[in-house]
Amino acid sequence: MDTERLQKQFDFCLEIDKEKMIGRQTYLSNGEEKENDAEHAWHMAIMTLLLSEYSNEEIDVLKTIGMLLIHDLVEIDAGDTYAYDEEGKKTQHAREMAAADRIFGLLPEDQGNKLRSWWEEFDFGDTPEARFARAMDHIQPLMLNASTHGKSWEEHGIHLQQILGRNAETSKGSTQLWDYAYENFILPNLKAGKIINDD
Amino acid sequence: MDTERLQKQFDFCLEIDKEKMIGRQTYLSNGEEKENDAEHAWHMAIMTLLLSEYSNEEIDVLKTIGMLLIHDLVEIDAGDTYAYDEEGKKTQHAREMAAADRIFGLLPEDQGNKLRSWWEEFDFGDTPEARFARAMDHIQPLMLNASTHGKSWEEHGIHLQQILGRNAETSKGSTQLWDYAYENFILPNLKAGKIINDD
Repeated sequence: MDTERLQKQFDFCLEIDKEKMIGRQTYLSNGEEKENDAEHAWHMAIMTLLLSEYSNEEIDVLKTIGMLLIHDLVEIDAGDTYAYDEEGKKTQHAREMAAADRIFGLLPEDQGNKLRSWWEEFDFGDTPEARFARAMDHIQPLMLNASTHGKSWEEHGIHLQQILGRNAETSKGSTQLWDYAYENFILPNLKAGKIINDD
Repeated sequence: MDTERLQKQFDFCLEIDKEKMIGRQTYLSNGEEKENDAEHAWHMAIMTLLLSEYSNEEIDVLKTIGMLLIHDLVEIDAGDTYAYDEEGKKTQHAREMAAADRIFGLLPEDQGNKLRSWWEEFDFGDTPEARFARAMDHIQPLMLNASTHGKSWEEHGIHLQQILGRNAETSKGSTQLWDYAYENFILPNLKAGKIINDD
């Protein structure tokens, strides 16, 4: 057995435990605790298993799930950048590149390269798998925010235009899922005044 | 679009958010917080992506990951039964069967049947995918327990024979991973007195 290879794999597997400690701004459906990155990734992986039939394009489901499972690992070093934090987003790319070097560098080279390429593919968002994964990454928090009647949107004073801006490409992953999310998650909270309407 | 189907899928996707609130006995690697079921499933899914090369038998990686992502959903109703809780284990099966009826029953029939069959396959443990998934389910907490120098084993006064009993079939999923886990996660904690040696 190649113990050095296995040692590297387990070192990585232990290191990524830290993703469970990276908090996000989204409330869980109980409206009390907030979600962390690992929980978010788990949730989207199952959603992909169930909702891939609505992808605009044929996708490799295993690759899409892999991409979603690992795409936030860089936040172990770089931290979570809230979707509407315009200052934080200026330095986000440089922070995340350094994190990717260190974290994916823990793995044997072949696996480190594979996971890093998935992470970059997700980031660029120009393959069918990345388009669908990015749609999941946007629709999952819309679903949770709607389940708490827009608690997080209200707390942050979020405008409809910010949500639409952030979701400009969500329909490229799945028109049907975007339409459903707009109707069922966004519109009711707009009508209830939980999302600020700029018109 | 079949809105009824999509509605059922999103009802299920929202319902499973509750898995993030089901606590386990395993400490995270920081030795402070304890893991929940969703974090545990996420962790094992990535471990499967990276470690499937050590499976004793050829496995379908997507199916194995799917199985691991969903296998604890029944605990939303049935609660987590600690590995060494002999009383709780007596009623575990009946509680989990009722939970499976309700939770998988939220989905459209085809998908509910598929996930339920994965859950049963995991439970029976007699396919290559289930054997590997069960090995992951045992090795992941061994890794975390070792990272906290056996904190959870020590708190519960766990004996070596309990760990070996629970892991009687782990090597059927992967001999190499079981050997590694025994050498690197169990033995050092036995020597350090964190696991009680019955000899």
